[in-house]
Amino acid sequence: MSSTGIRIGILGASGYTGAELVRLLGDHPQAEIRALTAERQAGKPLGEVFPQLAIYDLPTLVKIDELDVGGLDVIFCCLPHATTQAIIKSLPRGPKIIDLSADFRLRDPALYEATYGHAHQALELQEQAVYGLSEHYRDAIRKAWLVANPGCYTTTAELPLIPLLKERLIQPEGIIIDAKSGVSGAGRDAKQGSLFTEVTEGIHAYGVATHRHTPEIEQCLADFAGRPMRVTFTPHLMPMSRGILGTIYVRLAAGISPEDLHRCLAGAYADEPFVHVLPFKSLPATRHVRGSNLCLIGVHPSRIPGEAILVSVLDNLVKGASGQAIQNMNIVLGLDERLGLSQRPLFP
Amino acid sequence: MSSTGIRIGILGASGYTGAELVRLLGDHPQAEIRALTAERQAGKPLGEVFPQLAIYDLPTLVKIDELDVGGLDVIFCCLPHATTQAIIKSLPRGPKIIDLSADFRLRDPALYEATYGHAHQALELQEQAVYGLSEHYRDAIRKAWLVANPGCYTTTAELPLIPLLKERLIQPEGIIIDAKSGVSGAGRDAKQGSLFTEVTEGIHAYGVATHRHTPEIEQCLADFAGRPMRVTFTPHLMPMSRGILGTIYVRLAAGISPEDLHRCLAGAYADEPFVHVLPFKSLPATRHVRGSNLCLIGVHPSRIPGEAILVSVLDNLVKGASGQAIQNMNIVLGLDERLGLSQRPLFP
Amino acid sequence: MSSTGIRIGILGASGYTGAELVRLLGDHPQAEIRALTAERQAGKPLGEVFPQLAIYDLPTLVKIDELDVGGLDVIFCCLPHATTQAIIKSLPRGPKIIDLSADFRLRDPALYEATYGHAHQALELQEQAVYGLSEHYRDAIRKAWLVANPGCYTTTAELPLIPLLKERLIQPEGIIIDAKSGVSGAGRDAKQGSLFTEVTEGIHAYGVATHRHTPEIEQCLADFAGRPMRVTFTPHLMPMSRGILGTIYVRLAAGISPEDLHRCLAGAYADEPFVHVLPFKSLPATRHVRGSNLCLIGVHPSRIPGEAILVSVLDNLVKGASGQAIQNMNIVLGLDERLGLSQRPLFP
Amino acid sequence: MSSTGIRIGILGASGYTGAELVRLLGDHPQAEIRALTAERQAGKPLGEVFPQLAIYDLPTLVKIDELDVGGLDVIFCCLPHATTQAIIKSLPRGPKIIDLSADFRLRDPALYEATYGHAHQALELQEQAVYGLSEHYRDAIRKAWLVANPGCYTTTAELPLIPLLKERLIQPEGIIIDAKSGVSGAGRDAKQGSLFTEVTEGIHAYGVATHRHTPEIEQCLADFAGRPMRVTFTPHLMPMSRGILGTIYVRLAAGISPEDLHRCLAGAYADEPFVHVLPFKSLPATRHVRGSNLCLIGVHPSRIPGEAILVSVLDNLVKGASGQAIQNMNIVLGLDERLGLSQRPLFP
Repeated sequence: MSSTGIRIGILGASGYTGAELVRLLGDHPQAEIRALTAERQAGKPLGEVFPQLAIYDLPTLVKIDELDVGGLDVIFCCLPHATTQAIIKSLPRGPKIIDLSADFRLRDPALYEATYGHAHQALELQEQAVYGLSEHYRDAIRKAWLVANPGCYTTTAELPLIPLLKERLIQPEGIIIDAKSGVSGAGRDAKQGSLFTEVTEGIHAYGVATHRHTPEIEQCLADFAGRPMRVTFTPHLMPMSRGILGTIYVRLAAGISPEDLHRCLAGAYADEPFVHVLPFKSLPATRHVRGSNLCLIGVHPSRIPGEAILVSVLDNLVKGASGQAIQNMNIVLGLDERLGLSQRPLFP
Repeated sequence: MSSTGIRIGILGASGYTGAELVRLLGDHPQAEIRALTAERQAGKPLGEVFPQLAIYDLPTLVKIDELDVGGLDVIFCCLPHATTQAIIKSLPRGPKIIDLSADFRLRDPALYEATYGHAHQALELQEQAVYGLSEHYRDAIRKAWLVANPGCYTTTAELPLIPLLKERLIQPEGIIIDAKSGVSGAGRDAKQGSLFTEVTEGIHAYGVATHRHTPEIEQCLADFAGRPMRVTFTPHLMPMSRGILGTIYVRLAAGISPEDLHRCLAGAYADEPFVHVLPFKSLPATRHVRGSNLCLIGVHPSRIPGEAILVSVLDNLVKGASGQAIQNMNIVLGLDERLGLSQRPLFP
Repeated sequence: MSSTGIRIGILGASGYTGAELVRLLGDHPQAEIRALTAERQAGKPLGEVFPQLAIYDLPTLVKIDELDVGGLDVIFCCLPHATTQAIIKSLPRGPKIIDLSADFRLRDPALYEATYGHAHQALELQEQAVYGLSEHYRDAIRKAWLVANPGCYTTTAELPLIPLLKERLIQPEGIIIDAKSGVSGAGRDAKQGSLFTEVTEGIHAYGVATHRHTPEIEQCLADFAGRPMRVTFTPHLMPMSRGILGTIYVRLAAGISPEDLHRCLAGAYADEPFVHVLPFKSLPATRHVRGSNLCLIGVHPSRIPGEAILVSVLDNLVKGASGQAIQNMNIVLGLDERLGLSQRPLFP
Repeated sequence: MSSTGIRIGILGASGYTGAELVRLLGDHPQAEIRALTAERQAGKPLGEVFPQLAIYDLPTLVKIDELDVGGLDVIFCCLPHATTQAIIKSLPRGPKIIDLSADFRLRDPALYEATYGHAHQALELQEQAVYGLSEHYRDAIRKAWLVANPGCYTTTAELPLIPLLKERLIQPEGIIIDAKSGVSGAGRDAKQGSLFTEVTEGIHAYGVATHRHTPEIEQCLADFAGRPMRVTFTPHLMPMSRGILGTIYVRLAAGISPEDLHRCLAGAYADEPFVHVLPFKSLPATRHVRGSNLCLIGVHPSRIPGEAILVSVLDNLVKGASGQAIQNMNIVLGLDERLGLSQRPLFP
């Protein structure tokens, strides 16, 4: 084991985001996966749970109780919402923690309670947590020990909107985010609604006006708009495994053109390795980011004067979850942000 | 052959809408398919072009030139846009014509020319054509000899919006139609963009702000709003064969609630056999109308006061094309509108 | 209610085969669905469990205990394997019963026990049950009150093989059935292995050499071969909802050619409404029978002299389950076998 | 440009295998893509043809005529079958050539002519070409300048069969290869049969007894069996983009058990980085090798004594094409065979 290796533990490794971390970290030159936990599957090799990983040399699954936290530099937490906060609270301090659940994303305890239906169990940690939208909270992430990795829908919505709100190029009212997601966002638990037969060859909207990512989007956008935000967010389920596409309808600020939006976004992300703005009027497709940590953004004029349409795409399991988590680990540890994240998209 | 049989010809039977007419007419107690045309495939049995129809007793494909128009009561025209007008013009008058192309949908010659890039070749027929959105133009269709069957996207958008605009329950400005369609809408011609490998497991927007169905939607909505309309319409391609879902964002008129919209729509369609309004806040899925002539509509409040979200679904090849065409034939001939259209949805 | 109506009950209406019966019976001119049972969903309208059926006028779901068996002419039993036998045993005699489970398919109690791991609970009924492969057990079905509807894989394998074994055109040894099925065969219960994410864009074999349909195939083939049979049967899971394709490798009897096989099959099924033999060397596709009660069969020479390849396809929920069940009901009641089963295939 | 860089040209970069080479070579530490050709698309950046590659720094597409062959160390040839031979013949000698077409795979000119319907145009080169099944022709590949990269179906069939034939553990007669492939094997040309609507939710066999990969399989197996071979090979098209699964039925040699087959295969591939034999009776799934250069093999007993079933899977675009091509380049150049090929499978 190299002396420069980063000793990593993954809590909740039997879900899709856990397996995706294992896939991506296989390309990270310094990552050493030292521990994998899964309560019900403890004792099994990961390859029994995820056959695609059977040939790799990986630690056997253990329970969180059996974890040697002191021997780890970084912990990725892929546990279910609501149970995560108590577990992180109970862990000895030391390792940096990248939490992929929603538990530490909302800063306002009242908003958390309203959204999740119960009081937060670790408010003192929530105060220390930093929101992990890498490109826009980088300085804070650098100093953090607990990073609240953003949701997949929220990343898709926030990346195109933040620079425009920050520069006051769009109106803060009337933003509509019509979002479409692949099924892997629903996780690996057996649910009737996620069966192949129930999903293939069809689409539907769900969680309309009530989806829990909405307050997260609003909190983040408010940080940059400098005022409270209220958006329309409509998620739809797509018959595909991976990928999110956000079609975002915005109203231009006075005197601003769609070209101005494009210029602003292209400038804001010019030096970012993972966020790319397409030529004006070009629009991205989810299949062109599959398996990669990329977010692609397009800007298009509307037929309605004074309005514009933004389209952003990413792979919900990579930039929308495990990829951004590794990006955040790299930031926290002062490494090159791109390490482990150079996979080119898989197409077709 | 029964003396009460309706003698039917289908022009352009080698495409998906032609084959869908043949499928549906198999259940129509009075339909007798007497002629099928396909220029390049003339001389072949239809079962060679569409193996799923090989076991049925159907006429051999012929060229349009070889057609005995006088022996037909009804002609369904499934020919490509732009070439249809000249062909219909050249046919002897007599049979009722249900045209599934876009050629006779736009009443304003200038708008047609702006939309399709060339002058209309049969303006005198366009004046006689009746727009075939069955539920809302029924009286005119009854007296028509040439019905311009609506587009699939347009039917999806118009059915939920018309009653609301007619009753002035929503504002005519700011309507956003975010639409998602299966691939069969692109037809059966070999195109790289429609290959399985290019479509599966991914989504994208296309034709943003420029799609040719937009003027058609606006013309129809204007008929009921009593004023010119301008809408935002954004189509997306889905990795599925059939189905369209429209997510429609509307602004309420003063003093109107989302419940009012629901009440209006439920009332407007209470006696319609094919359009059904779900309970308030329930939302439909495309897979629940597959293969049927149904359109399902849901009404949901928005998080933004003064706004609401409508969701409508239909099968683009049935209510969005061939099914509505048969419905229009039934109206034109004074038959029970449901004949040949009682298929229950195929799920899973 | 018409005096000629057939009063029908469906036990286990919350699964896919139950819903498929409801879909198909909607086209049956004499069927009157009088009762629908579902233990856990009792009290709900069927449309809550299957939204695609919400607009139809159907009885509310009840528990089996609440069933008025005396008021029914026919009962379709769509209950899980192993629990079915006790329930049918407990019902008052009277209605004809079409059982879609595997409970009454195997005539030999020892074989049943070896296959299903427990002794049969209703051996006296098993003796009275008739195997429901409609085309080949028609005379017996006509007189039966309890029909054991065949499995989907077994129907796919038996239809092409029976005439050939009966006429001694192929050798009884060395038959290999490489079968491929859509996911709906696994039912609607939430299982990780049936999730969209686990199934889409991939294939695998399962139940190799152990699948429970194997003894059923062998029992049926033995009936016509006049000797015990032992076959190789390998099922595979396909990323699609509906459809089964069997690729069947056979060895020709001495002096027999592949053309002879084709001639035999074409002759055997010449008058059958649902089984069609394609021209020699033509091969069928599952998508061309979707939603219909058809079974299509192709015969092809092998590169190896003395061998041939048969390919058969059907829709596992129709001819492989609910469609054949209705066909059997029609036979039992002396009706035209085609009633309720004239739907043309849905393609694309 | 590093002095140790390998200067690479890709002929026919506008197809799927070309794009896949570009994807994989992005992870190869020494690869420098210097030239990309595409006759009809010449002058465009590759990102215009394949948007998923738009953000990478790659040479503009040129015509083959414009190629500076002298400046290249390796040429990957992804051109259509039949046209490749003349083009390779016309190139100046110098660079190593890895040909992904079928042009140089068959050593017997008469067999080539019988299979492809025309005489070979470069017989003198065919004599020098080495068949590129990396694991079994490694020594010859090391010395080759022209490598005939195997077909995707053939690799799937050959890897499990070669060790067994070599060790005489199975009978050379009666081998049946029932193979199932994703659609990307059909390439990116617009063909009606590859449309999403024609492929999704359905399966069919094709090229039965006539597929051109059959003689290639037989030639290769004969090399190891030490006698002419004749096999049954039946390809099927699956509704998925990537992946091939071969279900292979074999007859055991006298005194040999299925366990012996497993032991032989496990031993033969124990030190291979890309070919893995699962535990006895375990069976692989295509989705567990997606995007990787892996081939997984399972061995299962049959219900028929004296027979066994092998299942092998790989990604047709990687180990079945571009991945094996890079593996062969690494062998030819004396590099670590794994360079550029360490991507873990993408699942889900």
